[in-house]
Amino acid sequence: MAEENSLRDEPPLFGEELPQLLIIRPSNLFRAHEDGFSARFNVLRAYESPLPTETFLREHAQSAKAVLCFAGSPITAELLLHLPSLGLVVTSGTGVNHIDTAACRRREILVANTSDVFSEDTADYAVGLFIDVMRKISGGDRFLRRGFWPLCPDQFPLGFKVASKRVGIIGLGNIGSKVAKRLQAMGCKISYNSRAKKASIPYNFFPTPHQLASQSDILVICCPLTEDMRHMIDDDVMTALGETGIIVNVGRGAIVDEKALVKHLAARTIAGAALDVFENEPRVPTELLGLDNVVLSPHRGAYTAEAFSDAFRIVTGNLEAFFSNKTLISPVSTGE
Amino acid sequence: MAEENSLRDEPPLFGEELPQLLIIRPSNLFRAHEDGFSARFNVLRAYESPLPTETFLREHAQSAKAVLCFAGSPITAELLLHLPSLGLVVTSGTGVNHIDTAACRRREILVANTSDVFSEDTADYAVGLFIDVMRKISGGDRFLRRGFWPLCPDQFPLGFKVASKRVGIIGLGNIGSKVAKRLQAMGCKISYNSRAKKASIPYNFFPTPHQLASQSDILVICCPLTEDMRHMIDDDVMTALGETGIIVNVGRGAIVDEKALVKHLAARTIAGAALDVFENEPRVPTELLGLDNVVLSPHRGAYTAEAFSDAFRIVTGNLEAFFSNKTLISPVSTGE
Repeated sequence: MAEENSLRDEPPLFGEELPQLLIIRPSNLFRAHEDGFSARFNVLRAYESPLPTETFLREHAQSAKAVLCFAGSPITAELLLHLPSLGLVVTSGTGVNHIDTAACRRREILVANTSDVFSEDTADYAVGLFIDVMRKISGGDRFLRRGFWPLCPDQFPLGFKVASKRVGIIGLGNIGSKVAKRLQAMGCKISYNSRAKKASIPYNFFPTPHQLASQSDILVICCPLTEDMRHMIDDDVMTALGETGIIVNVGRGAIVDEKALVKHLAARTIAGAALDVFENEPRVPTELLGLDNVVLSPHRGAYTAEAFSDAFRIVTGNLEAFFSNKTLISPVSTGE
Repeated sequence: MAEENSLRDEPPLFGEELPQLLIIRPSNLFRAHEDGFSARFNVLRAYESPLPTETFLREHAQSAKAVLCFAGSPITAELLLHLPSLGLVVTSGTGVNHIDTAACRRREILVANTSDVFSEDTADYAVGLFIDVMRKISGGDRFLRRGFWPLCPDQFPLGFKVASKRVGIIGLGNIGSKVAKRLQAMGCKISYNSRAKKASIPYNFFPTPHQLASQSDILVICCPLTEDMRHMIDDDVMTALGETGIIVNVGRGAIVDEKALVKHLAARTIAGAALDVFENEPRVPTELLGLDNVVLSPHRGAYTAEAFSDAFRIVTGNLEAFFSNKTLISPVSTGE
């Protein structure tokens, strides 16, 4: 069905000889639109082979010109050694921290992402997580499904009011600025931290996460991960946020020192957290699974059918542009 | 502690002889601020007596001039017969459908509510429920806490995008208009149904819930309950909403035909629901407890510490005004 629809909507550009597309591990985007990809490309599935990845690449992917990757299928300099014909790395999302872009630059391999097609949905999800942890929505759902309501109707942990809270946004990019707009409509006071103060932005800027945390009730982490941002939200920042403070993370797990976060949540030295991302996905610290002051989410800030369709169009658009020697529609700079 | 604080903040007005306040059953607001009420009033607790309520009222409450009630402790005409001295009914919330206001009018008993102190929090909660059911947030939390993520990381039910959805609001009052403002900031298109078209409101008006449902992706029920609105959202309205439709209810349970709702949710003839209110609280239809297309919440749209403090101030303000023969601060009209 999906394949038929895709073919009808937008016929592949290359006739009988479909260009080769290497998939080392399938992203959820690939799985959701597998028929559409198969209709357009000769998909080389390394993950279906019993061979070790390197052997598979050496024996079957020497002519592969394009690879579709995602955070769970990183493109390292070493892996690139096994792909001598590669000309394009396209990723299923926005972030590219799983791609060794410097190695790509040296090999003159192009890199493309899905542009900011997921930013609106991720911002909505951040707001949903924000309200959930403040107002205990998933906790209430648990309370009710376990049958506790008729038994103890008066056990009502009060939530925190959203309006007038001081929200500190870490990373005021495509996602962060959309989160800010939404929370402003709910009466929150917005401040932010980013690499540099942004011109013509009405929100208060704080030059460090620590300073932002000390002046915020809630931190919302919306930035991508770069190496210098690993564990940027550390024990000190959490201490500055304090025992009524809350952390929402829709950026990347490793931006937060997860061990310190678990410690603060268990000791209630911060009030709560809502986490869509973790340091070692899909592993989640087991200590978190029993806490009632956290909302846990399996990294799906961007998981809507609509966004996946948009991303599919952008990924295939990049691939088709590459194979037609046209300009990519969402190229990522790999530096000088 | 709370009592000491209350006394320090705002001393009671009546010295040694505290005025009597009857509580037939305690509301959550009363429980949350019990010390504060006890500091200001001689609280007469019918629920602590082994006597049947009517006997208790006849033997102990003949001189009671004021009663604090809530939805779970209705003030009927019959109950009023046992309270000959009553002059004020004050409720712990905004709605007064649990008070026989006509009987109060005949007896010249005043009625007061908490004004719209809960509308902002209820609107935030509605938005939280809305995003939750669209984006499956509490479902994701369940998936993760049960340990499924590492076992089946690719089982990812995609959610629905929030932006650009057609939202139909039932009841564009204090809560409904705040929900509209919030969802507009998320890119939704707002329409509404209410008793009459409102002047200078930019949203589309539909004269019936059925017409609104047929032009909406999501219905958000924000209206109070009056007898003519019972089961206003019936089988026909749900059929008009259709299999991709979603219902969010932060109004009152009985506005929806709950049996029809359960049927449509189980048959997936509507896509989902997020329910803070039910027809027979705290009873929830058991069929709902196992469904993954509903978000269930134990009636706590207004449950924030901040809103409860505000409501406490308004309730005690009304009581103190009444006992001082001053004008109530938030009187409710009982008709002509």
